[in-house]
Amino acid sequence: MKHILLLLQYDGANYSGWQRQPNAVTIQGSIEEALSKITGRATVLTGAGRTDAGVHALGQAASFFTESQLLPDVFLRAVNALLPHDIRVVGADYVADDFHCRFSAWRKRYFYVVLNDSPVSPFVCRYVWNVKYALNIEAMKQSAAALAGRHDFKSFCAADTDVQNTVREVFHIEVEPMRTLPFMGAEIKGNFIKITIEADGFLRHMVRNIAGTLVDIGRGKAGDIREILKAADRKMAGVTAPGRGLFLEKVYY
Amino acid sequence: MKHILLLLQYDGANYSGWQRQPNAVTIQGSIEEALSKITGRATVLTGAGRTDAGVHALGQAASFFTESQLLPDVFLRAVNALLPHDIRVVGADYVADDFHCRFSAWRKRYFYVVLNDSPVSPFVCRYVWNVKYALNIEAMKQSAAALAGRHDFKSFCAADTDVQNTVREVFHIEVEPMRTLPFMGAEIKGNFIKITIEADGFLRHMVRNIAGTLVDIGRGKAGDIREILKAADRKMAGVTAPGRGLFLEKVYY
Repeated sequence: MKHILLLLQYDGANYSGWQRQPNAVTIQGSIEEALSKITGRATVLTGAGRTDAGVHALGQAASFFTESQLLPDVFLRAVNALLPHDIRVVGADYVADDFHCRFSAWRKRYFYVVLNDSPVSPFVCRYVWNVKYALNIEAMKQSAAALAGRHDFKSFCAADTDVQNTVREVFHIEVEPMRTLPFMGAEIKGNFIKITIEADGFLRHMVRNIAGTLVDIGRGKAGDIREILKAADRKMAGVTAPGRGLFLEKVYY
Repeated sequence: MKHILLLLQYDGANYSGWQRQPNAVTIQGSIEEALSKITGRATVLTGAGRTDAGVHALGQAASFFTESQLLPDVFLRAVNALLPHDIRVVGADYVADDFHCRFSAWRKRYFYVVLNDSPVSPFVCRYVWNVKYALNIEAMKQSAAALAGRHDFKSFCAADTDVQNTVREVFHIEVEPMRTLPFMGAEIKGNFIKITIEADGFLRHMVRNIAGTLVDIGRGKAGDIREILKAADRKMAGVTAPGRGLFLEKVYY
């Protein structure tokens, strides 16, 4: 048996998220289908993060076990030949048998992009949440800073999950206003706000709930983020930001 | 009568180019339709450059005359509300009556992006020409340099045009290898080659024919570019690169 790790990029707009589902087109389902065609056997893929519907990835990681002797690079090209253009394998290599895509990851980085009241360039419209209210960036920055460190993030966890431990450590969180975004070596102007979060793990909807709450704070609609955190109650936090603005950027092993 | 100048961005993938056509969806046709709805009168748009099918724009300019008293910024929002997301008005202002979008432009900048044999990221697949042959970048750079200045570019002009004067001045031409492209504040890896051309005007297919010829030179399939230029014969130059990799970046007035 070989254990192969794939590095993946995808535009999530046309998918019902990562996780395989019987009656929906998903990222995991699409790649597993390609792998099963190539190997001639049902092949199961384990992903590092189960991204939601519409969420994108620049550096998702996923692994599978196979009896096949095909080299990782051959898998890369064969899977890409079978997949639609909005999912790509951008790297492939052998990993140890005891490596686990999810549990071996000690840190992941997500970022979320808000575009604050500007015409939405066709080149970013699939990748931003266009917020039309005036936003107080300083308030968003200060509130974000209060989330750094080890906390119970229950207030930012989707209410319909039954996860036991909602404590996570946020290593890095940043709210960064950007007046231009580089694109193909040129520039796109706009009032962009990029929210970057690195943590040892993420609860369901955690980044989208933090982004939504920070936007609510920016427009003066939410209370003190320390109180929200302390309450450990999803109802205290703000809206869930739409999936389209969210990227899984990197998984650290 | 007011004369209004629009600054436009579009993803050209779903359009049969700029120019209005009776039985095809075009950029000019789509914007004229929106303007005519807003003003209640047939409104004609003059563009700075007639981009081909599939070609994109980061800074196309176009103007129209109207009896309407609506302010430019109101036009901006009204047109955007009627247009699909892949065409956006990103700026609007009054211009003098004798301003002409095409003839008043003294310089335009286009760029073309080649991706040389790497997995094609979903975030750039609509915007690059994926060339699988090994390319000699130095040969491409040296050949490009020979095109700078005032020349008869007839060898790089589409054969089916009846334009009289095929002399143009290329102010700047550059072949730039890039190992990463910035994207949403993150990075996409790949063997990108960006070809930038600024000139006082462009013949039909000129940038695509130059890009195609440079790629032919890079793979050792075309002769000396000075000879090609001197021949003043379209058959001497290389292939026409596909529209998808081409961007109209900027029009100078």
